[in-house]
Parts: sequence; C-alpha cells; structure tokens
Amino acid sequence: MKIDLLITNCALLPYPEMQGPIVSGFIAITGGEITAIGPMNQCPQVDTGTTLDGQGQLVLPGLVNGHCHAPMTLFRGMADDLTLSSWLQDHIFPAEAQRVNPAMVYLCTKLAAAEMLLAGITCVADGYFFETDVARACVDVGLRCVAAQGIIDFPAPGVADPNENISAGEAFLHHWHGRHALIKPALFAHSPYTCSNRTLTRAKELARRYRVPLFIHVAETGNEVKQISEPLAATPIRHLDALGLLDRDTVCVHCVWADAEDLDILSRREAGVIICPQSHLKLASGRAPLPSMLAGNIRVGLGTDGAASNNSLDLFREMDLAAKMYKVLPSDPVAVPAHRILDLALRGTADVIGLHPGSGLLAPGSPADIILLDTSRPNLRPLYSGDLLVYSGCAAAVRTVIVNGRLVVHERQLRTIDLDETMTQVNRLATESA
Amino acid sequence: MKIDLLITNCALLPYPEMQGPIVSGFIAITGGEITAIGPMNQCPQVDTGTTLDGQGQLVLPGLVNGHCHAPMTLFRGMADDLTLSSWLQDHIFPAEAQRVNPAMVYLCTKLAAAEMLLAGITCVADGYFFETDVARACVDVGLRCVAAQGIIDFPAPGVADPNENISAGEAFLHHWHGRHALIKPALFAHSPYTCSNRTLTRAKELARRYRVPLFIHVAETGNEVKQISEPLAATPIRHLDALGLLDRDTVCVHCVWADAEDLDILSRREAGVIICPQSHLKLASGRAPLPSMLAGNIRVGLGTDGAASNNSLDLFREMDLAAKMYKVLPSDPVAVPAHRILDLALRGTADVIGLHPGSGLLAPGSPADIILLDTSRPNLRPLYSGDLLVYSGCAAAVRTVIVNGRLVVHERQLRTIDLDETMTQVNRLATESA
Repeated sequence: MKIDLLITNCALLPYPEMQGPIVSGFIAITGGEITAIGPMNQCPQVDTGTTLDGQGQLVLPGLVNGHCHAPMTLFRGMADDLTLSSWLQDHIFPAEAQRVNPAMVYLCTKLAAAEMLLAGITCVADGYFFETDVARACVDVGLRCVAAQGIIDFPAPGVADPNENISAGEAFLHHWHGRHALIKPALFAHSPYTCSNRTLTRAKELARRYRVPLFIHVAETGNEVKQISEPLAATPIRHLDALGLLDRDTVCVHCVWADAEDLDILSRREAGVIICPQSHLKLASGRAPLPSMLAGNIRVGLGTDGAASNNSLDLFREMDLAAKMYKVLPSDPVAVPAHRILDLALRGTADVIGLHPGSGLLAPGSPADIILLDTSRPNLRPLYSGDLLVYSGCAAAVRTVIVNGRLVVHERQLRTIDLDETMTQVNRLATESA
Repeated sequence: MKIDLLITNCALLPYPEMQGPIVSGFIAITGGEITAIGPMNQCPQVDTGTTLDGQGQLVLPGLVNGHCHAPMTLFRGMADDLTLSSWLQDHIFPAEAQRVNPAMVYLCTKLAAAEMLLAGITCVADGYFFETDVARACVDVGLRCVAAQGIIDFPAPGVADPNENISAGEAFLHHWHGRHALIKPALFAHSPYTCSNRTLTRAKELARRYRVPLFIHVAETGNEVKQISEPLAATPIRHLDALGLLDRDTVCVHCVWADAEDLDILSRREAGVIICPQSHLKLASGRAPLPSMLAGNIRVGLGTDGAASNNSLDLFREMDLAAKMYKVLPSDPVAVPAHRILDLALRGTADVIGLHPGSGLLAPGSPADIILLDTSRPNLRPLYSGDLLVYSGCAAAVRTVIVNGRLVVHERQLRTIDLDETMTQVNRLATESA
C-alpha cells in the first residue's frame, strides 16, 4: 500500500457523532481519497510520499460553501446599507453591465478562491456569467467547485441574446463534463422573476439530461413573493413546483420567505435549500426559517453568497451567526444547537449541492478535502468540545488545507498562485472602476 | 522635539468623518500620547527612538471592549446552548464557586488579555471577583483596563461575607487609585436582583466619592424584568433611577429589555449603556433596542461579555453582527449603518466607560492606543471605504498593537508574556476542572 500524503499526530474530533474525546490520530491519503484514518497507535508504517506532522492541529472535513458569486469580490464594499432592489438596480446591475468580462471573472474569482481556501473552504457552489472562467480560476487556485452557468431572460455578460441562454448553458455543461476532477458543472437559473416559465422548464430539462444540479434564487425577499404571487396566485416555491422544477437535484437558494406549505413542498420533493444568513441580514431580506426546515427534514446547507452582500467569504462567521440568530425573537436557546450547524456546513451543504456521498466526512473512501486548524490560539483555549469551532472558530485558525489530496495551503500560505500579484491586480481594477 | 515611536507610510482612514480618501501618513508618539499625525509629506525629520514602517497597514484607534469578565475564559465552551438561568445556576455559578481563586483569575485574565490584544482591543472594561488580579494580569500583558470590583449580596469568591462587599470595593479603589497608567479602578454592582437597595446606594456613594464609574448588569432578560417589576411595580431601570443611581458615571450593561420610558430615563440621566450583541443572542436574552438608543442620543457602546457566553473576545464579530442584526425583523437596511457601528466601538464605548476624552480618536493629545491592520488580505480587497472593516474586518488582520505608546503586538506576535506557556497552563486547569 502506497500513501501519497500521511498526516500524523493530528487531533481528531469525533465528528459527526460529537460524542467522546478528541484523540491524537493519523490520516492517510492516496489518489485524492482518504484511505485510512485512526488513532496514532494504528498508524501504518509504510512507504509514504509526504508526511505532515499535524501536532497542535485539529482535523476537520473542509467547509463547503453552498452559494457564491465568486467574481463579485470586485464589488465588495462598493455599495453597503441599501435595500436589495436599490443595491441590485442602482449599483450591482450597472456595475456588472460595465465591468464583467472573462478577464475580470477569472481574476476576481482567483481572489475569491484564495480567500475561501485560506478560510478553510474546500468546495464552493458558484453561479455567475462567464462561469467557464470561474471554473478555470478555481482549477488554477486549487478549489473544488460546482460551477453553475447563469441563465437569465435579459441580455447578460457573455450571452447578449437571451434566446441563447439555454444553448450557452449546454455548451458550458458539454465543455466541463468530466474534464477536471475539481469541477462539477451545473446550471443556475437566476430566479422565478427573471426567467420565464419556458426558460425555467428548458433549464431543468437540460440539467436532467446532463444529470447536474439546477440552482435557483427563490423566495429571497418579501417583494419577490409579492411580485410572483399577485399574477400567479402562487408563492415562488409553489410556482416552481407547479412547473415540475423541484426534485433532489434542484437547489433553492435563500428561501427566506418560505411559508409552511412551501416547506412541506420542499420536504416532499426532497429539494435542497441553501441559506446565506449574513447576506440575508445585510440586505435586510429577513431570516430564513431554519428551525422549521430542520424540523421538517428539509435538506439544507449554508452559503456565504457573493462578497458584495456579505462582505466576506467566511463560513466560520456564517456558522456562528446561524447558531446564534435563531435563539431570539422568540427566545429559544436550543433552537439550533452548535453541533447541528457544524454538520450543516459540512455534510448538509455537500449533500445539497450534489457532491460525492462521502463528502463532509472523515472516512476511508471520502474525498481528501481536509482542513487542519491551529488550536494553539487564545480564542480556541480551552477546547472542551467541537461546539467551540462554531462559536469561536475563525478563518485565521486555518493552517493547512488539502483539496482532492493536494496540499494547497501550508502554514497559512497559499501554494498555488501568487496571491500578492492577484490582490494588486484586483486593486488596480477596483480603482479603475471606482 | 523627541519622538519615542514614529510610524511611517501607514494608511490613514478619514475617521471619524469617513469622508475623503485613505491617504499615506505618519503618526508620532511620545510619552504614551499621540503628538502628531498627518500625511507623509508633513512627516517630521527629527530624533526618533523607534521607527516602524507601516507600509501596507491601516491605522485605527484601538478597539474598546465595553464589557467583559476576563477570567471566564476558563469556562469558554464549557456549557453552551442553555437558558441564561440554567447556564448561570447549573453551570457557571457552581463552577465559579469551585474554581475561582486569585491564581485562576490572574492566569485566565492573561489568556483573555492576550486574545483581546491580538484581536485589536486596546482597552477593556472588566468586572469580576478578585479584580485586583485581573488588573495585575492586564498590567503584565499590557492591556488598558477599567477594572471594576464585583459587589453582590451573596458570599462571593474573595468576599465570603456579603456585609464586607462595599469595604472590599473601597479597599480595591484605594489600592489602584493612581497606581498604574493602564488601570482605572471602578465598581461593578452585579445586578438589581442580586444587590439590595442599600448595597446599590452604598456602591454608588462609594463610586461618587472616588469619582469612578459604577457598572451594573441591568434588564438583560425578560425574567429579570418580571422578577423586579412584580414586587416593585417598576422596571429594573426605573428601579435604579428611583434609587438615584443613574448619572453620567453609571454604566448600564445589556439593557436588552429597556422600554421607551426606560430609554427616555437613560437619555435624560446621560447614563451610559453597553450592549453585547453576540452574548445577547447566544443566551437567548433578546436584541437590545440599539436603533432607538441611537435615535434617543443615549451614550452607547459595545462589549463582548465574558468568553463563556460569546464565545470569543472579538469586537470585529460584535461590530459585524451589530451592523447586520437590526436590518431585519422588521426590514430596514439602513437601521444601523456600518460607520455608526465603527464609531460606537471606538469613541462611543470609550466615552461610556469614562476613558480620556481623546480616546477613540487619532489626534494630537489622544492616548497612543493604536492598532494597525494588514490590508493585504483577500477579505479586505478591494477597500473602497472603512465600512469594510465592519463587514469583513477580522482579528486576524491585526498586525501591530500599541497601548499607551508601548508596542505590545508586533507582526502579530505578543511581546509581553509567554503566550504558549499561558495557554498550556489554562489547558491544564481546564482539564482538572472538567
């Protein structure tokens, strides 16, 4: 047995059971997969490509970011404290019309991918225009990506004629199908208020044909619910259901304004949901009904949304907020316990966005998407249980990141691209656009 | 003119105006004070003790933590996701009765002080028992501290007989009065439900006599309001007002359950308020009425509370949450803009806890409590405005910390104590107590 990468003396949390002590152990990785894991006294004595001493580091599956628009790092902090409609119509849409091109998408995704990897995110589900350049950037930076090409019934960057939005989606799926281990192509229908019924059903047909997920923003704001409900006499989610769009391979992003019947539909159809707590608050959209989603066994995960509405791509912050924000209004200190949230950010999100079934687990056969956290930090001492990772964990604790068996972050440094050069280029682009 | 410490080429944010560009500048420090500040072309060419090149770093006044129980780092993550009463009665109070002693207070405050300094906090308002050991630890680690000795009508660590709580407070004030530049002594009456009217009025008399702030936890939970209101027919805040406790030198911590009349009283009395957003959510206490406080010109600041109910001592997280949490329920994206929050965490809190009037400003005559943030981080690029520090700033960006003119954190390393040794000792203590 040959081992490509052996991590020794690392602290192993009893995840997902969260019962029992943290022990010192090893993880063996070969060909992009975890091949063995256990306590140090079972560590294999065999030929090893690289050995990494994990002393003082705690191992977790990599965090999975269920929703992002990676290239929007360019618009981070450009327009804050505005309504969603003003933010979109007066700032983001005009900036996108003017600034989005393949070079910008590639460059600004590199920045986003670097930020995510350094913060312990090993996989992102992204949706944007020129998504092929998002995928290229993720490959170059070393981040796993479910890359979803945007579909919208307006002239869009890269797809000037909306009549070609489905064929552009198909060309994207065709190009990336089986092309790279890190990239899983998908489709992103923008929303029920920007896509016609015909576009939505054709997008879903195409996604079914290629057996890929279809993402859609839905029920994000009260305005959207009003806008859809008035002519159609159906909530956005019931509208999608009536069109036959909801199944295990549809990912409903946001669902802030899902009512009890909507939740029942999502549960029965086994559709996935991604909530983005920080973005929902910052854009004043509301608070997604996470406790009801969990009670209804809805498949749910967490995402950061794009940097323009967050403003950081940091799942530690999302976890902390998600574990706290449901404890008040009304008061319920056990509404969503920390260990549930950690599980959402790992297995929950991985399941929703259609990753390998072993994703989010540390077990033989799982993809070797692994992070190691430096526990020698004041804010992680003492470490009575893994709950502390939710309430006091932070991107800064991420010391080592492995994606698909490749060591991409070592001693907090990104090994794949020249990050300083990328930051300088993004800054230059931001200055031009300001 | 002799300069002790000169920082050059640092980025200067136009704080507090927040208008105009970020420029490259210098700061001169002598004898614990800022003596000059300006653009680089006005940088003095004089004899300088130490010069620090601030290239790539952005200067801010140090963050001020308006409320903490520093020694409670020992109980961080020991009991999560519980009601305040169960958390206090079943976990924290028993643990405190068993574990709190001067050595524990000194050691665990060192951990807290290190965590705070490394996260850009240059001053904390703390309240606990054996507060003299909190003050000693802060001196040794180099953190400015408004140290408030706890007063409660129960047998407490260090004050076995509650009849001696006021005299113990006086001994504390007497000992620390003018003793050390970093320490400003004060008193902390635990709450209106754990202190009799006599204790409260005697504590306030003592505080007035020594011209120091009196802190008190008040209106933290709905239960407290009920418990006070039923016998007294007054809310906790009206109860304190009736006792004559409220003035500019009283700091009301929490005020989650302050109604309109309470807010009016706080405004008229010019009493200070510290809110602790993360702790309020985590303990399911509620959401303090910050927008109404700001509208009513109440003097308000931010605090982390102790690590047991947060679970991190990180004001960047408090700022981010405070700027976001009021935007929903009901929806109001401009409820509390980011720049107001930044000002709260700097000038607002400094004013409430009674620091030097120049605190929280970068101006000649202000105390040299300064932090420098590394802006060469993916999550801080691009940097269109200072609002980004609220929405994407993080403890990990803190590269340099100066307190009272002394360089205590340099290149992210704490220069004052052996942090590894402190963490090891706290871990040992935690393992014993588990």
